[in-house]
Amino acid sequence: MTVATQLTPTQQRAAEIVREIQASICAGLEAVEHEAGSDAKFLSDDWTRSGGGGGLTRILRGEVIEKGGVATSVVFGELTPTFAAQLPGTGHSFFATGVSLVLHPNNPFVPTVHANFRYIEHGERRWVGGGADLTPYYFFEEDKQHFHAAWQAYCEAHPGIGDHPRFQQWCERYFYLKHRGEHRGIGGIFFDNLVVNPDDPGSEDRLLAFIRDGGMRFLGAYLPILHRRVATPYDPAQRRWQELRRGRYVEFNLLYDRGTTFGLKTGGRTESILMSLPPHVQWGYCEEPDPGTPEHALLVELRRPALDDEAIG
Amino acid sequence: MTVATQLTPTQQRAAEIVREIQASICAGLEAVEHEAGSDAKFLSDDWTRSGGGGGLTRILRGEVIEKGGVATSVVFGELTPTFAAQLPGTGHSFFATGVSLVLHPNNPFVPTVHANFRYIEHGERRWVGGGADLTPYYFFEEDKQHFHAAWQAYCEAHPGIGDHPRFQQWCERYFYLKHRGEHRGIGGIFFDNLVVNPDDPGSEDRLLAFIRDGGMRFLGAYLPILHRRVATPYDPAQRRWQELRRGRYVEFNLLYDRGTTFGLKTGGRTESILMSLPPHVQWGYCEEPDPGTPEHALLVELRRPALDDEAIG
Repeated sequence: MTVATQLTPTQQRAAEIVREIQASICAGLEAVEHEAGSDAKFLSDDWTRSGGGGGLTRILRGEVIEKGGVATSVVFGELTPTFAAQLPGTGHSFFATGVSLVLHPNNPFVPTVHANFRYIEHGERRWVGGGADLTPYYFFEEDKQHFHAAWQAYCEAHPGIGDHPRFQQWCERYFYLKHRGEHRGIGGIFFDNLVVNPDDPGSEDRLLAFIRDGGMRFLGAYLPILHRRVATPYDPAQRRWQELRRGRYVEFNLLYDRGTTFGLKTGGRTESILMSLPPHVQWGYCEEPDPGTPEHALLVELRRPALDDEAIG
Repeated sequence: MTVATQLTPTQQRAAEIVREIQASICAGLEAVEHEAGSDAKFLSDDWTRSGGGGGLTRILRGEVIEKGGVATSVVFGELTPTFAAQLPGTGHSFFATGVSLVLHPNNPFVPTVHANFRYIEHGERRWVGGGADLTPYYFFEEDKQHFHAAWQAYCEAHPGIGDHPRFQQWCERYFYLKHRGEHRGIGGIFFDNLVVNPDDPGSEDRLLAFIRDGGMRFLGAYLPILHRRVATPYDPAQRRWQELRRGRYVEFNLLYDRGTTFGLKTGGRTESILMSLPPHVQWGYCEEPDPGTPEHALLVELRRPALDDEAIG
């Protein structure tokens, strides 16, 4: 990746933060593989964007993590008029840097997890966004509690920025498959448009610190769940259930996810965007688990009521 | 399915045609399974649409056809204003009946195939549409020739309606994955908006006969290719290639296919719409076959130039 010298100090700092998050998470996951007796390592793919910037995509094919992607990018340049109109802010010039990850574990008892943290400039407007959400194949109340508690602590550690009830609701609304009447997972947090206040000298620092801390807390939110479940024995029927449910993950990402559809339609790097898709997936026809089974218990959780679509301010 | 008694004679006839096509194709495919020593049969799922009409979804899990769906529906009622504005014709009342099929064979040397034939009314406007296209995992020029020749003969058998060069181009434009720079398959035909002329008494008969004949010719276009390839031995690497390529099929259907995205977003029957998705699918990361391999030869074919996006009249 060529990070051009024209980056401002803030841009440079934001880009360093996402790379720092990436390095730390990848190292932590390689350690998990190592503990499990695997010597799987992330591969690294440096790429350059013709319009300006580039990225570093890191992919793991491990024993614990069947397929994991942790990607960073630093992109800048001119927006098309159509996109410029959709994005808060004015003018056509933009800068964006972020880290995005999706981990698909081998064991169906270990949930899939997604997280993303980003800093964006459009004209004079500058903001951060991000979040993390968990998609289990088998439902454990204690895993849900742990995951939400971790992100609640994160929000509470950043008074004036973190707003856990609001970010949790935002996540609840976003990761919903309307055509299935199902949430993608058990939720987490989602936030966007946390704007740098140009009249408050500390605002930028606090927002960048918020993003950095989110990335740094990711392993603490996820690994205890992974460790709790990773030794659970499973059979082919449970693996099949996982692969069927992964189909829903694909449906969400290709039908609803704004990052994915926007990225693909505006000439983003396809293989980096679609690194989020699971390695092995199945689609059946009208397969519904019997009431009383653990598979059914997951569906009961995922079919909790949808929040209405009112704007989140 | 409850076909309400208020159908007009033309609606009744169109609905009978699509059911006749469905019955004939399903019987033909069950015979293929039987010849292969399998006693796999289509299951039948009758469903009712709350707004009016319903359908019959038929699903095959066979030895030759790993997953096949052949679905018919007869739906009518009131359109939402948004959809009414997108559809040719005026007013809010509509009627639509059609047959749609996707076959995913087990053997990677046998191509996946899709076909669809439909009759639609919106206000005073009435029209037919349809088509068929082939998605191989390994490229054989003779299979491509056979498939295109079959649909060319079909078009030529219906002078004044069938326009093979135009319908072939239309298909070429439609089944294209822009984010991959790849066509979905080797093409076929696609047509829409072939309008019944209210001043020509024979127009309706000829268009319905065109649709019926398309459905009835489907097995002749596809089975010779299936029979030619179905005994080809294959290894796990070839199966993996097929599953990776099936991922592209999923990407097309969820990102681009108007029938799929429209159906899901307007409350169609999800399991009938997504019966088109393959049974086992994989996603890798940046996997490119070596030049000179049969896998690479497929990509050369699929990466033929895209036709420009100009409207097809």
